[in-house]
Amino acid sequence: MRTQVAIIGAGPAGMFLAHMLHQAGVEAIVLERRTRAYVEGRVRAGVLERGTAALLARLGIDARMNAEGIVHGGVNLGYDGAVFRIDMQTLTGGDTVMVYGQQEVMRDLFDAAEARGVPVTFEAEDVALHGIDSDRPHVTYRHGGEARRLDCDLVVGCDGQHGVCRAAIPAGAQEMFERVYPFGWLGILADVPPVAEELIYANHAHGFALASMRSHTRSRYYLQCSLDERIEDWPDERFWDELAVRLGPEAAASLTRGPSFEKSIAPLRSSVVEPMRHHRLFLAGDAAHIVPPTGAKGMNLAVSDVAILGPAIEAFCRHGRSEGIDTYSARALARVWKAERFSWWFTSLMHRFPDMRPFDRRMQVAELAYIRHSVAAQTALAENYVGLPIEA
Amino acid sequence: MRTQVAIIGAGPAGMFLAHMLHQAGVEAIVLERRTRAYVEGRVRAGVLERGTAALLARLGIDARMNAEGIVHGGVNLGYDGAVFRIDMQTLTGGDTVMVYGQQEVMRDLFDAAEARGVPVTFEAEDVALHGIDSDRPHVTYRHGGEARRLDCDLVVGCDGQHGVCRAAIPAGAQEMFERVYPFGWLGILADVPPVAEELIYANHAHGFALASMRSHTRSRYYLQCSLDERIEDWPDERFWDELAVRLGPEAAASLTRGPSFEKSIAPLRSSVVEPMRHHRLFLAGDAAHIVPPTGAKGMNLAVSDVAILGPAIEAFCRHGRSEGIDTYSARALARVWKAERFSWWFTSLMHRFPDMRPFDRRMQVAELAYIRHSVAAQTALAENYVGLPIEA
Repeated sequence: MRTQVAIIGAGPAGMFLAHMLHQAGVEAIVLERRTRAYVEGRVRAGVLERGTAALLARLGIDARMNAEGIVHGGVNLGYDGAVFRIDMQTLTGGDTVMVYGQQEVMRDLFDAAEARGVPVTFEAEDVALHGIDSDRPHVTYRHGGEARRLDCDLVVGCDGQHGVCRAAIPAGAQEMFERVYPFGWLGILADVPPVAEELIYANHAHGFALASMRSHTRSRYYLQCSLDERIEDWPDERFWDELAVRLGPEAAASLTRGPSFEKSIAPLRSSVVEPMRHHRLFLAGDAAHIVPPTGAKGMNLAVSDVAILGPAIEAFCRHGRSEGIDTYSARALARVWKAERFSWWFTSLMHRFPDMRPFDRRMQVAELAYIRHSVAAQTALAENYVGLPIEA
Repeated sequence: MRTQVAIIGAGPAGMFLAHMLHQAGVEAIVLERRTRAYVEGRVRAGVLERGTAALLARLGIDARMNAEGIVHGGVNLGYDGAVFRIDMQTLTGGDTVMVYGQQEVMRDLFDAAEARGVPVTFEAEDVALHGIDSDRPHVTYRHGGEARRLDCDLVVGCDGQHGVCRAAIPAGAQEMFERVYPFGWLGILADVPPVAEELIYANHAHGFALASMRSHTRSRYYLQCSLDERIEDWPDERFWDELAVRLGPEAAASLTRGPSFEKSIAPLRSSVVEPMRHHRLFLAGDAAHIVPPTGAKGMNLAVSDVAILGPAIEAFCRHGRSEGIDTYSARALARVWKAERFSWWFTSLMHRFPDMRPFDRRMQVAELAYIRHSVAAQTALAENYVGLPIEA
C-alpha cells in the first residue's frame, strides 16, 4: 500500500494532522496500536487554548464543542486560603479558553474521520519504521493477523513518549532535556457540580490542589501527592476532606461531594527532544515533548505542532517546496520551549517541593501576592494560559 | 543625653531616616561606629528607583543628583550573544531610574546633615541597646574615649546584617529566612566610558555579567565567579577578555578597556528577618533583609523601609498615635518580600548554577526569549526594576 504521509498514532496530534492533510488534499493514513474505544477513553486534560478551538473550527469539527463546551474568560489562583481571579479575557483583549475534555475532542475527531473517509487503522500492531534516512521510507505493521507494508514520502511520529518513532531516531542524532518532579497528581472524576464557575489552582502548605471540570455536572479535582502514595489509601472522604483544606474555607463552602468514578495517580515530568525531525521522520506532540499538567498545555502543544507541520507537509507534498518541513523543528521548538517554560514555572510556583526551605515557600507566596496586585504579571500569566501565538 | 529617636548606623537607611525626622520636627541622633570617610567610601550599588530619587527630592538633597546623575529609561538583557532593550519608561507610563552611586548619595546626605544640624556621631564604639522591651530604652556607647548614655523613646536599627540591633532581638522573637547562592560577583571600577548607554545584564553559558556605570566616564563591571575565586587570579586583561565573551560580540565591540582601580568579590545572599520590630526597636534596611545585587534593590529597599517608618515615627513622637509604628513591620515586609522575590527571580534567571542541568539552562533561555517578545513580561520586569509602589 502507498500513501503520501504515514501518521503513527491516533491521539490528538495524529488526528488533527490527519484532518488537516485531508482538508488540504494530501493523502495520509493513520496507524494506531490501540482500539478507538481505548484512545477515546483515556482521561486527559480538558482545557483548550484559543488556537486549539480555532483549529477545530477551521476543520469544521466544532459543532459539539460549541454546544457543550464551556467558555472560560478567567482563572482563579489561591494561596493562604484566599482566592483571586485573573480576568484573562479583559487582560488579553478578548481571548478565552474552552473547557472541553480531550475525550470529547477525540470522539469528535474520530466521528469526523469516519464521516469524511479519513483513513485510520486501529489495532495496527508491531509498527516499525524503515528507511527514514532515505527519500523512500516505509512502515511495516501487522493488522488482523496479517503483515502489512505502507510506502510513503514522509512519516509523522504522533505516538507519544514511549512510541516507536522517537526510538527510531539514532541516539546520537537527538538530545533529550528532562526534569522529573518529585511528586504526582492524584485525580478524581465525580458527577457533582464544580466548586466554582472557573478553575481554581491552589497553593497550600500541604501541597497543590486543582479544581477543574468537564461540564456543569462533572468535576475533575486533583491533589498533589507523593510518588509513593497508593490509591487505596485515598478513599473518597479523605480526598474531599483534603481538597476542602487546600482550596481554603471560602471555596470549600461551595464544594459538593459525591462518589468518584475515576481515581488515578500521574507523575509530573518536563521533557523535550531536539530536533523534532530526522530526515523523513517528523515528531509531533508527546513523541517530542512532555509537560507537567499544570496549565493544561499537553494537548494544546500537540495541536500547535501540527498547526505548523500541516501546512509545511502540504507545501512539500503538493508543490515540492521543502522550506516548511526544513524549518519545522526550529519553529515548533521555539513555541515548545515557551510552553515548557510556562508549565515548569506554574508547576514550580504552585507545588510543595520536598526539599523546599522556608525561604522558598516565601518566594512562592511573594510571587502570588505580586501577581495578585500586578496587571502586568496577570497579563503575562493570562497570555500564556490562553496560548501564545503559534509563531512569535 | 536624651533624644526622641536613637538611630543606630549612618548608612542609607539611617541617614534618610534622620533627614526625614529632622524635616518632621522629631529629635533624632545617629550613632555610627565608623568614620564618615569609611561609610562614604564603601562601594555599593548605583541605581536609584524612582521612589528613592523622589525622596531625595522631597528632602531637598537632590541638587547634585539632578546635575550629575544619569536618567535611564531602559535596561538591556543579553543571552546567547544577543542583546535586547526593555523600554521601561514607555512600559511603565513614564518611570525611570537614576544612575547615581551610593557613595554620592552618602556624601550628599552627610553634607546636608552638617548644613542642617542633623546630629551624627561618628566613631561611636561599643554601642549597646538597653530596655528595648520597656517604654524607656537607652543606648550606651563610647565616644572619644568616654562612656556615653543616650535615653530615647524609640531605637531604629540601621546597622546592617552584622550590627548590634538585630542581635539585640531575642532569638525566639524573630524568624530568619535565608538563601545563600553558590557563586559571587567579581566587580571592578575603571575610568573608561561605559560599553553602552544603559546597563546590560547578560546571561552567558560561562556565567552572568553586568555592565553598569557610575558616570559617562566611569564604568562598573561584574562577572559571576565561583566563591573560591581569588582576586589575584583576575588581572585586568583576564577580566576584560571574559567580560567581552559574556557580553557577546556586538556589545564587546564597543568595550573600552583600561586599568581598574577597585576590584573585589562579593557573595550573594537573600535573607529576611521577621518581624522588623521588637517593642521599641525597629529594624530598617540591611539590618532586616539582604538581597543579592541583581536588580540593584539593596539601597532602594532601605529607603522604602524608612519611607514607611518615618511618618509612623512622626505620628508617634509628635501626636502620640501608635497605629503607624504598630503596622510598620507588616507593611514594610509586604514590600520587602516582593523586592526579595524580584531579586531572587532575576538572580535565578541570569546566573549559571553549579547544579544546573541542561533542562534548567533551557528554561533560562526560554524565559529570556519569552520576555524578549512579550510586552506583558517586559512590563512586569520594568515595574519591578523602577520600583513597585511603596505600599500596594
